[in-house]
Amino acid sequence: METMQVKSNGRVQFIDITARIRETISKSGVRDGMAVIFVPHTTAGITINEAADPAVVEDIKEKLAKLAPYSDAYRHAEGNSDAHIKASLLGSSVMVIIADGAPVLGTWQGIFFCDFDGPRTRKLFVQIIPS
Amino acid sequence: METMQVKSNGRVQFIDITARIRETISKSGVRDGMAVIFVPHTTAGITINEAADPAVVEDIKEKLAKLAPYSDAYRHAEGNSDAHIKASLLGSSVMVIIADGAPVLGTWQGIFFCDFDGPRTRKLFVQIIPS
Amino acid sequence: METMQVKSNGRVQFIDITARIRETISKSGVRDGMAVIFVPHTTAGITINEAADPAVVEDIKEKLAKLAPYSDAYRHAEGNSDAHIKASLLGSSVMVIIADGAPVLGTWQGIFFCDFDGPRTRKLFVQIIPS
Repeated sequence: METMQVKSNGRVQFIDITARIRETISKSGVRDGMAVIFVPHTTAGITINEAADPAVVEDIKEKLAKLAPYSDAYRHAEGNSDAHIKASLLGSSVMVIIADGAPVLGTWQGIFFCDFDGPRTRKLFVQIIPS
Repeated sequence: METMQVKSNGRVQFIDITARIRETISKSGVRDGMAVIFVPHTTAGITINEAADPAVVEDIKEKLAKLAPYSDAYRHAEGNSDAHIKASLLGSSVMVIIADGAPVLGTWQGIFFCDFDGPRTRKLFVQIIPS
Repeated sequence: METMQVKSNGRVQFIDITARIRETISKSGVRDGMAVIFVPHTTAGITINEAADPAVVEDIKEKLAKLAPYSDAYRHAEGNSDAHIKASLLGSSVMVIIADGAPVLGTWQGIFFCDFDGPRTRKLFVQIIPS
């Protein structure tokens, strides 16, 4: 298992980690299989979406802010219930297929670490499974 | 890795691909393991839900249309921000367990390719991992 | 593949299954790999979120109830469309990385079986894949 650090600069930030995942897979030497990319936090998530136009992830962030506003009738008293909810809506892991030693992604796809309660230094785990 | 084509006829359509996944797993000869089913698009997703009553996926489509309407104050200028948002809400992959050479699904479960910006001819990747 | 039973006491209940997953992984003898945890139901889901303060999952349950209310203009006539929608929003499986014979989770993370249409006795499948 590989551990990486991801640093966010704002409270809600989507960080494109595609190049780092590509490099981790390449270094592993595994040609064919899959990678599990896992976020070990409860106020951050991960998603795969368009990496070309940054407006796409802005739209996703704004929609999530409407669905789970920062201030609402929450019970959890730490002021970050919105972040916990968003983490469950997007999920705490994604998987990518590995073929020819590289992640198989669509033309427009990028992998985004989604911090919902930054700025923080976060961890990300990558496990590579050969097939 | 297997590649399949999925064709949608409307803008938002859920297509039951369970039989094709079952066939792909059967042909692989793998008796025990898992399959990663991955959508390489940013305006389509994938989900597992009830395949018996078609009203179930209609309800899911309508609810997603209320959560992320076609027209809204979006920044991305291509007119398909709703589709990108829905793709992240449902996710770009599902996994199924393989036992005795077949996917292990509940009685009512089917696997649905979810086009949110059709009609188009889409791709789907299946990677089978033995255990 | 391991099968476990999960019993819910209310209509909507999040049940912490972390200890049982940890035990299943430990018993398997696999030191390094991943586990697929799969819910074979269409009105239940699974998520990873904070297990320390029970208010966190209460907030998630309440938000999901606002996004997909029990009563709405649903087509599916069984009175549980909200449960089907929530199942697709959270997903029917999670995966965890296995290292040193144990699931690798963050300090605050727990794995929750999410019944959205209980009370019932449900099943859960766990497939362990060595790396």
